[in-house]
Amino acid sequence: MTTASSAALPDPAAAPPEQAPPAETARAGVSDRAATQQARDQQVGQRPGTLTIRAGSLAPRLFLISYSDSFFQEQEYHSYDDLLAYFKANPDLKHWLDVRGYNDLGLIQRLMQDFGIHPLHMEDVLGDYQRAKVDLFDDNRLFLVSRMTDFTSLLEIDDDQLSLVTGPNYVVSFQDDYEDCLDSVRNRLRSGFSMIRHKPPMYLAYALTDVVLDHYYPTMAAIGDYIEVLEDRIFNGRPNRHLLSRILQMKKDIVRFRRLVYPEREKIAEILRMPENVVPEDIKVFFKDCYDHAIQAMDLAESYRESISSLMDLFLSDQSNRMNEVMKVLTIISSIFIPLSFVVGLYGMNFQRENPDGTINHLNMPELYEPWGYPVLLGLLALIVTGQLIYFYRKGWLTNR
Amino acid sequence: MTTASSAALPDPAAAPPEQAPPAETARAGVSDRAATQQARDQQVGQRPGTLTIRAGSLAPRLFLISYSDSFFQEQEYHSYDDLLAYFKANPDLKHWLDVRGYNDLGLIQRLMQDFGIHPLHMEDVLGDYQRAKVDLFDDNRLFLVSRMTDFTSLLEIDDDQLSLVTGPNYVVSFQDDYEDCLDSVRNRLRSGFSMIRHKPPMYLAYALTDVVLDHYYPTMAAIGDYIEVLEDRIFNGRPNRHLLSRILQMKKDIVRFRRLVYPEREKIAEILRMPENVVPEDIKVFFKDCYDHAIQAMDLAESYRESISSLMDLFLSDQSNRMNEVMKVLTIISSIFIPLSFVVGLYGMNFQRENPDGTINHLNMPELYEPWGYPVLLGLLALIVTGQLIYFYRKGWLTNR
Amino acid sequence: MTTASSAALPDPAAAPPEQAPPAETARAGVSDRAATQQARDQQVGQRPGTLTIRAGSLAPRLFLISYSDSFFQEQEYHSYDDLLAYFKANPDLKHWLDVRGYNDLGLIQRLMQDFGIHPLHMEDVLGDYQRAKVDLFDDNRLFLVSRMTDFTSLLEIDDDQLSLVTGPNYVVSFQDDYEDCLDSVRNRLRSGFSMIRHKPPMYLAYALTDVVLDHYYPTMAAIGDYIEVLEDRIFNGRPNRHLLSRILQMKKDIVRFRRLVYPEREKIAEILRMPENVVPEDIKVFFKDCYDHAIQAMDLAESYRESISSLMDLFLSDQSNRMNEVMKVLTIISSIFIPLSFVVGLYGMNFQRENPDGTINHLNMPELYEPWGYPVLLGLLALIVTGQLIYFYRKGWLTNR
Amino acid sequence: MTTASSAALPDPAAAPPEQAPPAETARAGVSDRAATQQARDQQVGQRPGTLTIRAGSLAPRLFLISYSDSFFQEQEYHSYDDLLAYFKANPDLKHWLDVRGYNDLGLIQRLMQDFGIHPLHMEDVLGDYQRAKVDLFDDNRLFLVSRMTDFTSLLEIDDDQLSLVTGPNYVVSFQDDYEDCLDSVRNRLRSGFSMIRHKPPMYLAYALTDVVLDHYYPTMAAIGDYIEVLEDRIFNGRPNRHLLSRILQMKKDIVRFRRLVYPEREKIAEILRMPENVVPEDIKVFFKDCYDHAIQAMDLAESYRESISSLMDLFLSDQSNRMNEVMKVLTIISSIFIPLSFVVGLYGMNFQRENPDGTINHLNMPELYEPWGYPVLLGLLALIVTGQLIYFYRKGWLTNR
Amino acid sequence: MTTASSAALPDPAAAPPEQAPPAETARAGVSDRAATQQARDQQVGQRPGTLTIRAGSLAPRLFLISYSDSFFQEQEYHSYDDLLAYFKANPDLKHWLDVRGYNDLGLIQRLMQDFGIHPLHMEDVLGDYQRAKVDLFDDNRLFLVSRMTDFTSLLEIDDDQLSLVTGPNYVVSFQDDYEDCLDSVRNRLRSGFSMIRHKPPMYLAYALTDVVLDHYYPTMAAIGDYIEVLEDRIFNGRPNRHLLSRILQMKKDIVRFRRLVYPEREKIAEILRMPENVVPEDIKVFFKDCYDHAIQAMDLAESYRESISSLMDLFLSDQSNRMNEVMKVLTIISSIFIPLSFVVGLYGMNFQRENPDGTINHLNMPELYEPWGYPVLLGLLALIVTGQLIYFYRKGWLTNR
Repeated sequence: MTTASSAALPDPAAAPPEQAPPAETARAGVSDRAATQQARDQQVGQRPGTLTIRAGSLAPRLFLISYSDSFFQEQEYHSYDDLLAYFKANPDLKHWLDVRGYNDLGLIQRLMQDFGIHPLHMEDVLGDYQRAKVDLFDDNRLFLVSRMTDFTSLLEIDDDQLSLVTGPNYVVSFQDDYEDCLDSVRNRLRSGFSMIRHKPPMYLAYALTDVVLDHYYPTMAAIGDYIEVLEDRIFNGRPNRHLLSRILQMKKDIVRFRRLVYPEREKIAEILRMPENVVPEDIKVFFKDCYDHAIQAMDLAESYRESISSLMDLFLSDQSNRMNEVMKVLTIISSIFIPLSFVVGLYGMNFQRENPDGTINHLNMPELYEPWGYPVLLGLLALIVTGQLIYFYRKGWLTNR
Repeated sequence: MTTASSAALPDPAAAPPEQAPPAETARAGVSDRAATQQARDQQVGQRPGTLTIRAGSLAPRLFLISYSDSFFQEQEYHSYDDLLAYFKANPDLKHWLDVRGYNDLGLIQRLMQDFGIHPLHMEDVLGDYQRAKVDLFDDNRLFLVSRMTDFTSLLEIDDDQLSLVTGPNYVVSFQDDYEDCLDSVRNRLRSGFSMIRHKPPMYLAYALTDVVLDHYYPTMAAIGDYIEVLEDRIFNGRPNRHLLSRILQMKKDIVRFRRLVYPEREKIAEILRMPENVVPEDIKVFFKDCYDHAIQAMDLAESYRESISSLMDLFLSDQSNRMNEVMKVLTIISSIFIPLSFVVGLYGMNFQRENPDGTINHLNMPELYEPWGYPVLLGLLALIVTGQLIYFYRKGWLTNR
Repeated sequence: MTTASSAALPDPAAAPPEQAPPAETARAGVSDRAATQQARDQQVGQRPGTLTIRAGSLAPRLFLISYSDSFFQEQEYHSYDDLLAYFKANPDLKHWLDVRGYNDLGLIQRLMQDFGIHPLHMEDVLGDYQRAKVDLFDDNRLFLVSRMTDFTSLLEIDDDQLSLVTGPNYVVSFQDDYEDCLDSVRNRLRSGFSMIRHKPPMYLAYALTDVVLDHYYPTMAAIGDYIEVLEDRIFNGRPNRHLLSRILQMKKDIVRFRRLVYPEREKIAEILRMPENVVPEDIKVFFKDCYDHAIQAMDLAESYRESISSLMDLFLSDQSNRMNEVMKVLTIISSIFIPLSFVVGLYGMNFQRENPDGTINHLNMPELYEPWGYPVLLGLLALIVTGQLIYFYRKGWLTNR
Repeated sequence: MTTASSAALPDPAAAPPEQAPPAETARAGVSDRAATQQARDQQVGQRPGTLTIRAGSLAPRLFLISYSDSFFQEQEYHSYDDLLAYFKANPDLKHWLDVRGYNDLGLIQRLMQDFGIHPLHMEDVLGDYQRAKVDLFDDNRLFLVSRMTDFTSLLEIDDDQLSLVTGPNYVVSFQDDYEDCLDSVRNRLRSGFSMIRHKPPMYLAYALTDVVLDHYYPTMAAIGDYIEVLEDRIFNGRPNRHLLSRILQMKKDIVRFRRLVYPEREKIAEILRMPENVVPEDIKVFFKDCYDHAIQAMDLAESYRESISSLMDLFLSDQSNRMNEVMKVLTIISSIFIPLSFVVGLYGMNFQRENPDGTINHLNMPELYEPWGYPVLLGLLALIVTGQLIYFYRKGWLTNR
Repeated sequence: MTTASSAALPDPAAAPPEQAPPAETARAGVSDRAATQQARDQQVGQRPGTLTIRAGSLAPRLFLISYSDSFFQEQEYHSYDDLLAYFKANPDLKHWLDVRGYNDLGLIQRLMQDFGIHPLHMEDVLGDYQRAKVDLFDDNRLFLVSRMTDFTSLLEIDDDQLSLVTGPNYVVSFQDDYEDCLDSVRNRLRSGFSMIRHKPPMYLAYALTDVVLDHYYPTMAAIGDYIEVLEDRIFNGRPNRHLLSRILQMKKDIVRFRRLVYPEREKIAEILRMPENVVPEDIKVFFKDCYDHAIQAMDLAESYRESISSLMDLFLSDQSNRMNEVMKVLTIISSIFIPLSFVVGLYGMNFQRENPDGTINHLNMPELYEPWGYPVLLGLLALIVTGQLIYFYRKGWLTNR
């Protein structure tokens, strides 16, 4: 869950790179393939609570962290039975059961039964597209969904689902990924000084929610960095379609980000309204802090939206400016040479000096027979050019921009 | 109620196909003929509750599914009397009376009377334009309207009305179509393992509402697919009016979709606020799930709206780009050849070498009499061209895009 | 109150017709003369409740419909005293007093006194610009304002005010027009089978409110029809300022329509919140139906707004397209002929073949002395043209619109 | 407080007039100098309730109107002591103390003390930039701020502050202007028939609030008139920057107007929610009427905003149209004459008819030696021109604007 | 905390100055570096309440102002122990402890403990990016955050955080800057006449909040001044990218300002809703005044937003106008000289007067042999030019703009 450094970001104005997947990158600014995939994955007409393992789910791995004020044990179990036995044998410890990967329907169903999870909640876990929410069930247990964000090298926001179920002395977390952004919480638990060790499991649920929210900031910072890259491009380079495509991609990312953060804020606001017996006052204080963070993240997203909109304005104004520049070159060159061409054309006419009777017709193009005719004409042409250049200079067409 | 696959979708940049109805397709992006039809169909000044069969209604077909935990029977009745007799003879069973087609006013009126349906509700059923809503009547019965969507091969969202009336041991459903999207519910009922068999009829009403909502996703996915097709067109093809027309059509579809989903969400929110005696808590849990789906559908629609808006930006920027390109060609060719034409025009002038007295005037166009005049001039012209090409190359007009 | 058929609508792309009032029609799209008139008519600094007859008010005509379950009488009275006498003599009947035209201050004041109408309400009646509203007064009486719409042949929405005052056994309606859209209610009353005959006068108030709302649909349908006409114009004709003016006029109409419907919805929502003793539950059911209609009308208006916005997009894109097309013609012709002109100019130069010493200078324009010079040159020119045509064809400038 | 008639309005498309203040007028459309002045005038870091007389305040003039059902006296006092003595000596009369001009801090402080005005309210009075509001203080007294609008000949909305303080038997009004729009209220009071004479002072407060609100309509009407002037300009004249500047000025005015009316509406809504002992029910009826007016004023402002937005659309479309027209002239003339120039250039070439050996080279430009060569060529040129004219005519470039 | 005068503001249309930091200034309009920095600074995955000193924090300085109705003492302490001793020894005085600079974790932790500050609040203090807010803790203490704004010479809004913690007889303020905008409050305290001396510490908290809010006005005024500078530039100078960049920068500033003021308003609204024992009624009156100011500041920001949007409209219209002007010059010159060139080209053709048999061919270009041929042709050319000039004059292309 590390963030791509801006140095590694693709050059926004360059044509898409040759290596895979070029087409996707180039087109990234427009359609929302993730949304379409989500719409397509939706199970239609199934019985509610039907558990379906999505294609591509990982084989489940089970991690159990058991702790108390003075005790800490962390272990990956390869047998669910062993895990359950240990869990049941230690009702006085607090437990964090961390399930990574869903690809074992039998295991999922046993978990559901043993930990009293509602089938509809389990469906939300497996569906992987649930926006952040909190559900109160069994009077004092919570089902929490958070979305963990990452900014990919393809400039898209990737988001994975983290689902939490709280119980009297445990928290079960579900995610369909072996890597996650929760290591800082694990480290705090390991250290022994962490408040998590001394507080009820609801505090662990808070800590997990908070760390996910904290990871929104690097995503935002990466977007902010990339906006600066784009800005440099516009100021130094040339506006082209690939640049526009990247700008639109950033816009999409920011909109997507807002759609991720907004329900997060709603979720925490709902937690803050929950009765004392579900979320005690001394834990609400921490959720209130979380709430402030969510609002700040939305403020950031608004800032970036403003920046992107200004980038678009600059881009369009530049596009228009370039047209202007092209037109100026055309106008200056045409305006100078077309009149000149007329003049030289004039003296290319074949009006006859001699009348049929052999006499000289002094009316027909006498200039051609003047001794100083040609030099005077060249001087006249130079005068016309100078006059026009002064006119264009005064208009600022020669120097400006 | 199947969704057109993207392969079968019309090529968005091509001129409208020759076969019918070409004009409609080409114009699809703009006016809202469905809305106008709806406004025109509205009965003006009629007594409320007046039942009018719309032109084009189908002859009614009656299907009765009767079930209990252990019993299941499904039958199409051609005589309403038979149906009613069976219904009345089995008060212990739960019944789903499925009315398809309204074209028999007498039958409609008998249904109204026998199942205690309010005339205003019946008017809503027959009007076929009611947006999703729920009405509580007779203290504990619900009148529910859902709208079933379909994405037609003409790229429009088609929506049909499904009206439900709940009763103590039955649900009556009305639709003016023989085909529908409810087969998955029927199959679940037939299977015997379905929860529907064990729950009160209100659960059947939920299941029908849910399956309609589930069908919004394929519609969305089809729209998403088509947006990708349009996107490919813009990136590979040329922006033209037909493409714009398709983009606007998609925009209209998405707006229409939001107008369909929004009241659906409102409806479910209203159900969630209903008292326990109308919708028991254990069924509300399922409606809550429905509510999450409705919000997700709106989120999807927002994503697509963003995509369409980006498509428009790309389209307009492309249109402007193409103008730029045209101007560049004009400017490059004019800027190169107009000065050249001046130079060759210059040496086409007829200034006389010979004075009237027969002496040579060395001031008048001596270049023409130089032995190397012509080759030097050609070299000069080549130099001018080279200089201009270098200038344009530096400006990026020769290579860029 | 009939709606102009689309056949009779003015041709939107044509210049405004010669007959009156052309100027108004052409300019219709921009300023809101009705609003300005309204602002100007507003009485400034008058005592509230001051009754002022607006210029142009009609002479009042009084119609009384008296009815019960079994009785019906309809009469125009030319003497208010006679009317009042009949009204007072029949306290058991229900009465609908229909006042059309306000131009008799004395009569208005007597009506106010005899029917207990509040001066502020009477001021609203006479002002004729009141948006839809409902006021509860005297604990159980209502003052209702509706606005009746019409789509004029000048493409504008015309709206007249209908004010209703309810009483224990009567409804008084005020309008400043002899023609109205209420005939369908009168016909239902005359028929004897109508529910109005059997229900309290509040139901008559509902019926009148409902019929006004119903008339919004033909207005909408006329707007929808005209949008289709405009759409055809854009697709077949040429975008010009008159067309734009019509589009903006339609936009104004739709905005105006929304401003008319929105308070209508608010009004009905307020009626639905009124206590049982003012509007009994069995009449509220009908108002609820009204409410659904108002929401549907707003949905329609939203659809049209979307259509108009798409029309604008099409119009602007077309305007830009036409510029593009003009530029392409210029570019193609210039790009082909300017280089050709250079070449032929080249061979129009007068470099001398003969040196002053009479010898032949083989360097000066030897092409002119080649036997095949001219045909080869013509071939070269043809080659240049062909090359350019191929280039432009490949760019799609020759075929693609 | 009279409204500039539309005849006197500056010509919007003309350059700004020579007389003062031209620069301001020309630039009026953009920056908001009034707002900047307000920001600059704000006292920073002062103790709240500090009374500061703004530069340019007028010397105070004191007017006292004392009245009862049967009594009326109106007098300007030059000594505050006399006024206070009379006020105290007549506790049974109702009084309206009208303070115009603030430039006497001692007097202001005495007023504050004698009439129990809160220092923060007095600060609001003197600051002169307070938006409309109502404050309840001392349990049953109101502090009311209204803003009186005027449409200046510089096309800007001017607004002055009217502050009211109510007491048991008096109303104190403050304004920093000798002229106001309250004369109609004074006249009603003088007449003796006015309801004001018979109602408590709160009704006078209502009457003053109402008359200020009524004066919003002439302002709106003047804006509406000017929009029509602008519209005429666009349709008849030429779009230029001065016109755009005026359009933007009108837009700013309308936005400013909305910002003035909106708090006015909020203020009245707050009054309507006040308890019976502060504002009795029979006065609330009148405020309700006021509320309707405020909503109507906002509706008008919305109408104008729509009009201005359409004006902008027309303006921009016209700007684009004019470019189009320019391009068409260029294209038509270039397309016709550039090919012709090529043809005549062709026959200006100097290919030699005679081979070096004196024989005739029939391949080199035989056309030049044809007896009918020249007439045929002229015919050919005429043909080309005709063909092009037909082509351009068919495209509509010759006729269509 | 003084505001840059408009004279010192960079010239918006000029290229960025050579001295540092030119690039930043030029690019200022687009990306939001402050936001990105904030996102990057965010601590990820840390235990909540972890205190981290930001890089660049200042060494803390401690100022203690102790006061009562009759006593005043102000002192900078270099030893925290001394300060604490004095503070504890004088429980009857009111104290304002002003902490400037955070760079001493030990001190910060002692402050936290001695003054009972919640670790989460301390984290907000040190983080320096907290938006304005108020938290109630320990039942009757407040934690308040304000943001102090400044308008820098780089045209950006700089904002620093001021955090306040109230206690029974003290207020602790935190800021990471030695200079601030609170001197006016200190001066009022020193003067002895200030209300602050007589009121509880909550009033001091109010006074500090108020003075911060008051400082928003000079920032706004500076923005307003700069908008006028930009406006002058647009009217007098030439639109270019640097100007656009400045306009976008101002837009960003205004948006940023609104994001600063909005939570300020929310904060004060929340204070107004607090119970009597936390904020007594007589202090709420002052906060209500604050609230009005916050709303006024938002109104100002809205005004400026409108101005900036109009500036953008003017800028874009100007950009388009300039293109128009360029095109007009091109069109006028081309339209005049291209036909002339054709005519003179025509008479440069070499059609032979003499037939091969030596006879005169009177059909081939007889004009060339007319005695008056050349003068007549010159006259004709003059006529063409005059005709075109009249045409262009009538179109307004020669005079207009």
